[in-house]
Amino acid sequence: MTPTASTLAARPQAAARLRGVLSPVVTPFKPDLSPDPDRFVRHCKWLLKSGCSGLAIFGTNSEANSLSVEEKLGLLAALIHSGVPASALMPGTGHCALPATVRLTAHAVKQGCAGVLMLPPFYYKGVTDEGLYRYFSEVIERVGDERLRLYLYHIPPVSQVGISLKLIGMLLAKYPGIVAGAKDSSGDWSNTKAMLDEFGKSGFDVFPGSEAFLLDGLRHGGVGCITATGNINPGPIDNVYRNWRSADADKLQAGIGATRKIMQKYPMIPALKSVIGHFGNDAPWRTVRPPLVELAKEQEAALIPELKASGFAMPGLAG
Amino acid sequence: MTPTASTLAARPQAAARLRGVLSPVVTPFKPDLSPDPDRFVRHCKWLLKSGCSGLAIFGTNSEANSLSVEEKLGLLAALIHSGVPASALMPGTGHCALPATVRLTAHAVKQGCAGVLMLPPFYYKGVTDEGLYRYFSEVIERVGDERLRLYLYHIPPVSQVGISLKLIGMLLAKYPGIVAGAKDSSGDWSNTKAMLDEFGKSGFDVFPGSEAFLLDGLRHGGVGCITATGNINPGPIDNVYRNWRSADADKLQAGIGATRKIMQKYPMIPALKSVIGHFGNDAPWRTVRPPLVELAKEQEAALIPELKASGFAMPGLAG
Repeated sequence: MTPTASTLAARPQAAARLRGVLSPVVTPFKPDLSPDPDRFVRHCKWLLKSGCSGLAIFGTNSEANSLSVEEKLGLLAALIHSGVPASALMPGTGHCALPATVRLTAHAVKQGCAGVLMLPPFYYKGVTDEGLYRYFSEVIERVGDERLRLYLYHIPPVSQVGISLKLIGMLLAKYPGIVAGAKDSSGDWSNTKAMLDEFGKSGFDVFPGSEAFLLDGLRHGGVGCITATGNINPGPIDNVYRNWRSADADKLQAGIGATRKIMQKYPMIPALKSVIGHFGNDAPWRTVRPPLVELAKEQEAALIPELKASGFAMPGLAG
Repeated sequence: MTPTASTLAARPQAAARLRGVLSPVVTPFKPDLSPDPDRFVRHCKWLLKSGCSGLAIFGTNSEANSLSVEEKLGLLAALIHSGVPASALMPGTGHCALPATVRLTAHAVKQGCAGVLMLPPFYYKGVTDEGLYRYFSEVIERVGDERLRLYLYHIPPVSQVGISLKLIGMLLAKYPGIVAGAKDSSGDWSNTKAMLDEFGKSGFDVFPGSEAFLLDGLRHGGVGCITATGNINPGPIDNVYRNWRSADADKLQAGIGATRKIMQKYPMIPALKSVIGHFGNDAPWRTVRPPLVELAKEQEAALIPELKASGFAMPGLAG
């Protein structure tokens, strides 16, 4: 399926590459634990007007692995129907099962999404680079659309199955342009730096998986970050992105670190939802889907005042 | 949904509890990587006439986590349509996403399956017993069928999310009879023994996840085993099960250990498929779905002679 000049000319163009601050959007649930598309759309629109240049919906922080393929298709349709541009979207589409990954990826590409963020299949452990190469190759071949922009999702602390530099090299050699970049949520700057050093100059876009590495990443050729706290603190994080060459950059970076430090004392996903529920004056946001549990009352009672004391705010969130 | 005497009387009875040797049936694929129902049915029928008292289809060794829900529904339909009794089936139905687990579980129960073997949701790590309790409770409530016999699947080396004794106790207290047992694939006899000691006498059926613990399990109140090598060596393993009170039991147990020891030198799933392909004279069996890779030629060239030299055979497999 290597695209030729003629097929490229005959087909719709791929969306422009995303850069800047992307939020792995948390997914609101109704009391019956079904996804809540209205709250989801509202939060996505708030993020886009508050500093996010893109939305990495269906990520780890979205509880995406607790959603069925059909639920993800429904939420994506709701977003696009509401006027959120597909060119701002980088949905997570990786599942353990090849057909599920192909189905959601092909759909996202047809909808015009800027890219997809793809977990490796994560049930079987100790798999080889060759096995993962075959998996991603099968997905790319089956999707068979040169508009696909595939971002590899490296998050070994959760998935336990990672994306090695060798695997990136194998995939880039066969699918240049299609394999567009990676999110590195290893939490290991030396790995992010190695990705940037080895592949950054050849059009492979690296997003650190935390704003802690935003400035360091930008200084080494990174293109932004995709970070949990982007759900609640997009403006200040975007400010680092926009001003990373300024004399103030280190100070701005230190500022966003304070919010992250507070959040990291708590289980991240329930804590994000508590914060959105509190600052948006919208209690139903607190609901999480099992196996997660919402923040305990005493945890929230400690978290919110600490955030407020730090000067944290979510301007424009509460209707 | 606690069943009352009247609802129990009004509804079909649950199938009898499975005991003995269950095989987590390997799933054959066609060259295009789609499941091969004909080979699947043939292998299931061979297993049932060769020593297996039940079939734990869609287990870890079935590459079930590489199959979509729809593919599993298709294979289950093919089996039942072919005349394999649902009362011999314990399909794996656990997915990361609650709706997927509910969908496959409800279907299996409606089809009359003897039980379901349920993985915990395994993407999010470090989840609490409370979160897992809520997950399993939601599944049980949504399935809402008193014929459900749920076997908890404890396989921390792969899933990384386990089933603690505390969680079993919590679930048994709320859903006695529905929560019917567990497969313990921890590989840790002290954990299997603790499950048996704590819950074995109250009708909680424990299957060790390996024939290595078959005899020890039976001597402590276990009901059989569910083991990968049941795919190729069901007769001798069943022989231990049938004769565990005999004077020969330890000798029989030692005999099945030899086959396991040879298999454990290789990646288990591709090795099982190579052995079935070789002894069944049916090369297409070797196909695995990515991220797994088939056994290398030199590995198979070492494995098969070693098995033959040990006296291993698969009577009745080759047409």
